[in-house]
Amino acid sequence: MRTITIKPKALTHNLNQVKKMAPTSKVLAMVKSNAYGHGIAAVLPALQQADGIGVATLTEALEARQLGWDKTIGVVEGVFTVGEWQAAIKQDISCVIHHAPQLQWALDDIPPAQSATRIVWLKYNTGMNRLGFDADGVIKAAERLHAAGYQLVLTTHFANADDKENSLNALQIQRFSELLTTLQTTIDADIKGSLCNSAGIVNFSDHHYDWVRPGIILYGSAPVIDKSADELNLQPAMEFSAQVIALQTVSANTAIGYGSLWSAPQDTKTALVSIGYGDGYPRVINSDAYVTVINETNQQSYRCTVLGRVAMDMIVIDVSDMPEDTALNSKVILWGDVPHVDEIAVCADTISYELLCRLSIRPNRVQTQ
Amino acid sequence: MRTITIKPKALTHNLNQVKKMAPTSKVLAMVKSNAYGHGIAAVLPALQQADGIGVATLTEALEARQLGWDKTIGVVEGVFTVGEWQAAIKQDISCVIHHAPQLQWALDDIPPAQSATRIVWLKYNTGMNRLGFDADGVIKAAERLHAAGYQLVLTTHFANADDKENSLNALQIQRFSELLTTLQTTIDADIKGSLCNSAGIVNFSDHHYDWVRPGIILYGSAPVIDKSADELNLQPAMEFSAQVIALQTVSANTAIGYGSLWSAPQDTKTALVSIGYGDGYPRVINSDAYVTVINETNQQSYRCTVLGRVAMDMIVIDVSDMPEDTALNSKVILWGDVPHVDEIAVCADTISYELLCRLSIRPNRVQTQ
Repeated sequence: MRTITIKPKALTHNLNQVKKMAPTSKVLAMVKSNAYGHGIAAVLPALQQADGIGVATLTEALEARQLGWDKTIGVVEGVFTVGEWQAAIKQDISCVIHHAPQLQWALDDIPPAQSATRIVWLKYNTGMNRLGFDADGVIKAAERLHAAGYQLVLTTHFANADDKENSLNALQIQRFSELLTTLQTTIDADIKGSLCNSAGIVNFSDHHYDWVRPGIILYGSAPVIDKSADELNLQPAMEFSAQVIALQTVSANTAIGYGSLWSAPQDTKTALVSIGYGDGYPRVINSDAYVTVINETNQQSYRCTVLGRVAMDMIVIDVSDMPEDTALNSKVILWGDVPHVDEIAVCADTISYELLCRLSIRPNRVQTQ
Repeated sequence: MRTITIKPKALTHNLNQVKKMAPTSKVLAMVKSNAYGHGIAAVLPALQQADGIGVATLTEALEARQLGWDKTIGVVEGVFTVGEWQAAIKQDISCVIHHAPQLQWALDDIPPAQSATRIVWLKYNTGMNRLGFDADGVIKAAERLHAAGYQLVLTTHFANADDKENSLNALQIQRFSELLTTLQTTIDADIKGSLCNSAGIVNFSDHHYDWVRPGIILYGSAPVIDKSADELNLQPAMEFSAQVIALQTVSANTAIGYGSLWSAPQDTKTALVSIGYGDGYPRVINSDAYVTVINETNQQSYRCTVLGRVAMDMIVIDVSDMPEDTALNSKVILWGDVPHVDEIAVCADTISYELLCRLSIRPNRVQTQ
């Protein structure tokens, strides 16, 4: 059975790691994109100790409210229409404001005093150059929002925080820090700040400010280029597995699969595994990719290389090193404890975030106690 | 709104194209992997004129039955356990048999005479070297299945049919043709044959046999390397779209997005689009990638290049060539008529099949009349 197993205890463990790293900050746990592919319904109960959750869109925010999340919800792309702004008010949802139309909607329609929508995350473009106002725009927007009764969180987003040495980081931190000081001095000393995503939490512990926004780190992947998930004491929150559905021996010099991409250097025992890109396993992957096969008889784990082209429904693996009794229906771990999804991401020339998010609806979804 | 729009009329048109190409064969329309990401419930009504549907697993077969498909269902990976074999009998589902355990389950538990499970698709490994018996294995299995009352369809799968000139094609066709003749001569003249997937239908019209098995061609993508979807008169069955959520001008020599991957050669008008790898748009994509933006005022289409790194929730596009009144919330087509998903697949160093299958559950799903 193609299976995605979510591990709530790992999520809670990782959240606690974040709290240890950023002990004086509130935590906005990022659950956008269906909780990085883990399933928002599956992860929310494990993240109860977060101070709030972050989503990309109002649609995701409304889903989280419907699932019973009654604390802060922050929408990082903000609302797309005035109608969405009004819906946000109804559900007590806090929004990022990153451009003039959103500012105008907020000024035209002010939520009740006790509404969480009164808290606005004002986006400052410090170098990512996607969303946000420039410094002057932030100051003007902050003045108007403050005068209208809004509480403000100044926020920005790192472009290269995974690489601590990248020179843009210091520049973004400096711009953010200076503008926050300006706002606090000239408008309201109580204006808050939020700078750090997962990578920022790890790499810039002197700049955590009031709210940190952990994402990938909650799911157990390393957010920085120079430390592994293990070194950061993170636990993978997902196991992605399938099963052996056929066994055969491929003769030397025989090619297998589409494009005859791999040819057996010698007679090779292979297993077919019921997983493919139709489930979300990446089609373009190099020859370092491997899986773990669990021998049902002795519960031993074996590392088996992926051979040839990943197809829609199947991959072929090398089981030459498995004992004689490799069984049909043996469990095969695509990623989880071993291999870690971060390893497979390297084999696929991408990052774990993408592998986790691009899972299809075909695999069965379960969770551990 | 992130939206996947399915076009039933395009599916029916493409099915009719297949019927024109293979007028004397029955059609097993492949709907595995959630109908190549299109959604099985959305496509089945448009494929009513197919003689049967093909799925990867029993789970998918049972879903199709539950959705009301009452004709042939073929399971190309076959069943994984004896319990699944018994479930297949209960639901009149036909299975591929590709290894000895499946053969034994079929011999131990013979379905009633009128059951569709009495039709077995016997898999011959002619060169793909994934699933199937060798020639001797096929003959022995065919003898036993025939004696037990099964009707047989000999089947195999091309490894390189997309490339007509690949020498393995002729070898696979020869092996298949010879063994089918042997079976028909020595066991039963009424044994059927099924050789061609989409690429085989296009490239090997002399070898269509009794059943063809179109997959990607139904969804409007080109299955061969030397003809485009347009040249084959196919219509894309999916439009994948999003919207502009912010506009800004990036100054010359300013980098945007993660990794500061793209730097503006001159002052550049950009738009943020609410789509990313969290929806299934590929993260690793080259600089040829583009989208179509629809100007709401004049309904004109504009080709806009994708700039910098694809993020989880957003991409940035170049709207310098758009008229002054580029509007927030303008519709952006990621793939559909233009660009065709086949073009974006080339930009992502993969095939359309993968892009279609690896869509996440986040986008809203609708269909045209």
